[in-house]
Amino acid sequence: MEAVKEALTDQEIDDYRYQAPRWTVVVPPGGEKRLERNFQFPNFIEALDFAIRVGEMAEEENHHPRLVIEWGSVTVSWWTHEVRGLLPNDFQMAAKTDTIFAEF
Amino acid sequence: MEAVKEALTDQEIDDYRYQAPRWTVVVPPGGEKRLERNFQFPNFIEALDFAIRVGEMAEEENHHPRLVIEWGSVTVSWWTHEVRGLLPNDFQMAAKTDTIFAEF
Repeated sequence: MEAVKEALTDQEIDDYRYQAPRWTVVVPPGGEKRLERNFQFPNFIEALDFAIRVGEMAEEENHHPRLVIEWGSVTVSWWTHEVRGLLPNDFQMAAKTDTIFAEF
Repeated sequence: MEAVKEALTDQEIDDYRYQAPRWTVVVPPGGEKRLERNFQFPNFIEALDFAIRVGEMAEEENHHPRLVIEWGSVTVSWWTHEVRGLLPNDFQMAAKTDTIFAEF
């Protein structure tokens, strides 16, 4: 029997922050705690290409982010809806997103 | 000399609405008037594929939307930053987005 997962506490989140130091913990109005980072690009198509890469990685990992694509910018948010907050895996997904960005 | 373009007035927007009847005119807090529509999909990857198709069409037309991709959902927003509002072309882009969706 699998243990019920619970969202990380604020103290635990602090302990995981080193895995994704450039990400911000945000809570949108009426929303759930999430990790968020904005990535800048010189034009639309590179922003779209980055979002596609992140989306394909997400599909492989079966954990999906929110992606906001604008001209020259992608904002990525990771959280775990099932626990209405963050799990260790969200920090790992954030770190993988950073790795994709580093290749651009 | 090209005429300076000005954003459509509310009256003119009403006249163009028939081109994109399923879209909503919204003004985010501190933002500019835009056309917005949410499209639903059965999973993440189809949402991503739709966003890619819209993004590629946008690049061809050299007019770029805001795309918010979530699990099973894409929200598309069209507006013209240069006029801080809507131009007739935004309605045409919305209609082209509907055409892409109809093929899914």
